[in-house]
Amino acid sequence: MYRSHTNGELSLKNLNEKVTLSGWVQTVRDKGFMIWVDLRDRYGITQLVFDESRTSADILVEAKKLGREFVIQAEGSVIERESKNPKNPTGEIEILVSNLKILNESQLPPFTIEDETDGGEELRMKYRYLDIRRNPVKDKLIFRHKMAQKVRNYLSEKDFIEVETPVLIKSTPEGARDFVVPSRMNPGQFYALPQSPQTFKQLLMVGGMDRYFQIVKCFRDEDLRADRQPEFTQIDCEMAFVEQEDVLEIFEGMTQTLLKDITGKDFGKFPRMTYDEALRNYGNDKPDIRFGMKFIEISDLVKGKEFKIFDDAELVVGINVEGAADWTRKQIDAYVDFVKRPQIGATGLVWIKFQSDGAITSSVNKFYNEEDLKKVAEQFGANAGDLMLVMSGETNKVRAQLSALRMELGNQLGLRKGNEFAPLWVVDFPLLEWDEETGRYHAMHHPFTSPKKDDFELLTTDPGKARANAYDLVLNGNEIGGGSVRIFDRELQSKMFDLLGFTREDAEAQFGFLMNAFKFGAPPHAGLAFGFDRLVAILDGNEVIRDYIAFPKNNSGRDVMIDAPATINDAQLEELSLKTNL
Amino acid sequence: MYRSHTNGELSLKNLNEKVTLSGWVQTVRDKGFMIWVDLRDRYGITQLVFDESRTSADILVEAKKLGREFVIQAEGSVIERESKNPKNPTGEIEILVSNLKILNESQLPPFTIEDETDGGEELRMKYRYLDIRRNPVKDKLIFRHKMAQKVRNYLSEKDFIEVETPVLIKSTPEGARDFVVPSRMNPGQFYALPQSPQTFKQLLMVGGMDRYFQIVKCFRDEDLRADRQPEFTQIDCEMAFVEQEDVLEIFEGMTQTLLKDITGKDFGKFPRMTYDEALRNYGNDKPDIRFGMKFIEISDLVKGKEFKIFDDAELVVGINVEGAADWTRKQIDAYVDFVKRPQIGATGLVWIKFQSDGAITSSVNKFYNEEDLKKVAEQFGANAGDLMLVMSGETNKVRAQLSALRMELGNQLGLRKGNEFAPLWVVDFPLLEWDEETGRYHAMHHPFTSPKKDDFELLTTDPGKARANAYDLVLNGNEIGGGSVRIFDRELQSKMFDLLGFTREDAEAQFGFLMNAFKFGAPPHAGLAFGFDRLVAILDGNEVIRDYIAFPKNNSGRDVMIDAPATINDAQLEELSLKTNL
Repeated sequence: MYRSHTNGELSLKNLNEKVTLSGWVQTVRDKGFMIWVDLRDRYGITQLVFDESRTSADILVEAKKLGREFVIQAEGSVIERESKNPKNPTGEIEILVSNLKILNESQLPPFTIEDETDGGEELRMKYRYLDIRRNPVKDKLIFRHKMAQKVRNYLSEKDFIEVETPVLIKSTPEGARDFVVPSRMNPGQFYALPQSPQTFKQLLMVGGMDRYFQIVKCFRDEDLRADRQPEFTQIDCEMAFVEQEDVLEIFEGMTQTLLKDITGKDFGKFPRMTYDEALRNYGNDKPDIRFGMKFIEISDLVKGKEFKIFDDAELVVGINVEGAADWTRKQIDAYVDFVKRPQIGATGLVWIKFQSDGAITSSVNKFYNEEDLKKVAEQFGANAGDLMLVMSGETNKVRAQLSALRMELGNQLGLRKGNEFAPLWVVDFPLLEWDEETGRYHAMHHPFTSPKKDDFELLTTDPGKARANAYDLVLNGNEIGGGSVRIFDRELQSKMFDLLGFTREDAEAQFGFLMNAFKFGAPPHAGLAFGFDRLVAILDGNEVIRDYIAFPKNNSGRDVMIDAPATINDAQLEELSLKTNL
Repeated sequence: MYRSHTNGELSLKNLNEKVTLSGWVQTVRDKGFMIWVDLRDRYGITQLVFDESRTSADILVEAKKLGREFVIQAEGSVIERESKNPKNPTGEIEILVSNLKILNESQLPPFTIEDETDGGEELRMKYRYLDIRRNPVKDKLIFRHKMAQKVRNYLSEKDFIEVETPVLIKSTPEGARDFVVPSRMNPGQFYALPQSPQTFKQLLMVGGMDRYFQIVKCFRDEDLRADRQPEFTQIDCEMAFVEQEDVLEIFEGMTQTLLKDITGKDFGKFPRMTYDEALRNYGNDKPDIRFGMKFIEISDLVKGKEFKIFDDAELVVGINVEGAADWTRKQIDAYVDFVKRPQIGATGLVWIKFQSDGAITSSVNKFYNEEDLKKVAEQFGANAGDLMLVMSGETNKVRAQLSALRMELGNQLGLRKGNEFAPLWVVDFPLLEWDEETGRYHAMHHPFTSPKKDDFELLTTDPGKARANAYDLVLNGNEIGGGSVRIFDRELQSKMFDLLGFTREDAEAQFGFLMNAFKFGAPPHAGLAFGFDRLVAILDGNEVIRDYIAFPKNNSGRDVMIDAPATINDAQLEELSLKTNL
């Protein structure tokens, strides 16, 4: 037996008990006649004490050998501490050690195993097993586990069945790039790793499984942007004999359960917003509604005043920053510079100050008198002391730019608080989006998403206008889940493939088995998937998903700890009937 | 709203309620003036009734269009049935339909969607989504889900954390063959899919995670034997600061919980058997102890009687088949033929009958008189009416052969009952096994398994004799789980790699990151893994794992439903810097 207790559980209740503890040496304080050791494990820290007057000489000798991260086993009695540490649950007691065994030594770790470490990102990733010993990382992985358990228990109670869908499937060149797996037994042929279990979950609905979920690894061979991983985890769900409303209700309930667990608060019904409203009010289909600064369109007020930039603009739109009228020129310029960054791409930013003395002034005083500006301020609902920031241009572009500015302000002003949660549904997404590059429509969600019944005719007359039965769950400015009511009619599905520019042969080759399944009584069905890595990060008040993955890959898709990917030997290639092209 | 209730929940309690049901048409019985439809979903079957005198004419017309597997929605009132069906939970009521909507039609399915289907294996796999509609398949998937939930909840309560380990890892040519995944971003390099998360779970222990589990997909590119899948699921576990006893206790508890849930019975402490005992008593390291027929060694009694076959044999060993003395020559010959099959490879089988009249006779009467045979019968503990079957030869071979015979007898005599469970631990496995082909030792469990402390010296003097801290959990003649106490000392691990014939370079290349991790305070740790597919099958009284996998692959590793693997296009190969060798 290596331990009678963990390092997180002893208190004054255990006074005078004989205990055995094991763990890592966090710190050693050696005063010569007395040595204190903080012993750490996953559950906490317990203080060990060695004392010239009470500890045998040979144990003291051992104790003096201890270094950081040594693994030890200590036997002793629980005694009351003289100087208590109320911050530590075990801080009222210490262990007077009567026996000590060094189970394993440790070299000095390449960075300190503390909450705030001196290790940089790269070093931490290379020695991830040491990084995981740190509370912030360990706690994130435990949090992830707890959320997964909550999700599984909630869905199981709602009669969902977790079904494992296959990992070795078939490549569908449509969409993102697949990872492929050469088949040795079928030379020249490849499996693909799933980007999502989409078709399998639909087949499970055809198969009568009724309510399916899976917490499942998915794979995408993309050029990695920051915080994208080639393998990621989804909560994948599908339901039969349901309409959009049924899906929203179940997963709103699930999210409420998680939020309640974290905050202790009841979250009422989540607000809903159409895609159009979201874009008009926040310039964004995943608005962060923890804070205001809703978009106010002022084209009607500012056009025809000889200010060519506004006159030429398709849209003039702004936000009101409360209490910011006293910002200095330098402060405002920082935001002007922000929107001019190439990633944002705006040419400028107009500001209007509603001063605390009631006067209104602006960066475009040449074109607008105080009367004009007053009307604008009224439209903004601005009060004395507020600052209005206005941008203009082509509608889609200016909305995206102003949205970026709004989010930057939210960050800078501390309005995006990690421990506040503002969920909402965004609904009524467009079915299709036009892709200039390829000159054809793409499915905004995916090719299996059903159009709204009212918009069926639009599919023929004006497909770009057709809306979909598609919905996203947005939390704190992030899309955490998204889904749709699926097409379950073979004819309609064929029509969609046509619209998306699939030839009959392509559609058959890629989705033939699904189309075939639809011949045998497909039920109405709908579903949704959550990005689990992101969901967990946001629920924990964070946005960096990498910290919530035990062994993440870097931006080149490498695992620097195990040094993968790596070359394989010629025999392996030979067996797979492959040659590299290098 | 597609339904107010499922097809499994209505009873006389709901009499006269207006309900809406949806589902598949299981059967239509059309008597002209009345039509009965069995409506099916995952939850059950509800009878719909259409009646000339009570149903409107247009609804009747619709009802007459219905065929098997049509998807429909029906509104109506719950009425009491005249002829009740007590076997069906909804069998006391039926629905008098007032409104009917055909949601989707169905072609005639390629096989009947009944508990006993006329579809052969291949057809069922091609149309797996229809196969899943059948109760036996659906119920198996639901059973699997429930077991997974039980396991997760049990382990979570015991402070285990489910951590997702990566799927894209590094190839280690040692052991079974890896599936590999070419990396586009790192041309000429490959990821591998994990055969198990072994090294990652050990790193999690080094990382202080203390108790880890994961229900996880693993991959092995083997030539598939019957009922082997290229992707399979493990319950993978690891614990720190534990000894073998701690691991056994936790997972005995887990298995007891599952068994209790299934049988309603408490399973006491599981018996334990050493590897040597298992081989001696059952010829097998995974004995089915639901039935007797323990091996009885009789070399000492039968040698030196001029029967050359026994005299030359390293071991003469048999089993006693109770009450089989009256078997005919033909019956016995069937078993003689069985052991002579090339898969078994025996040259013959000696029988000794302890007749009900007390006389003893045998197939080797020429060499043994009744006095000799009586002593043998005594050693067997045989009674009048029993039949002893005896084999001889080289110890390992004859044990394996007799074990195969014992299992065949168990099957034929109906002693291997699916609803009876006999778990046991097999412990004290050898550390190494000698491989004639390669002329070196292989790790019996894996290279990270620790030798027993008492056997440390043997590693140098006689490695083949060294026992390991390794254990298997055996249920009904199947190894359902196995694990070991790991080496956590760098020096000892190096020594193991030497013993296994790894060069320092190979060991470094393949396991360098683990060896490196061991420099920084690795704790003592141990673990185990269950084959989840097999565990579920056996717990459900079955041995065919394929039925417990939603979308299994066939013996060539093909998914015949989606037709994978398949060729990929040249552009994909080009991007991966690969050429096929064909």
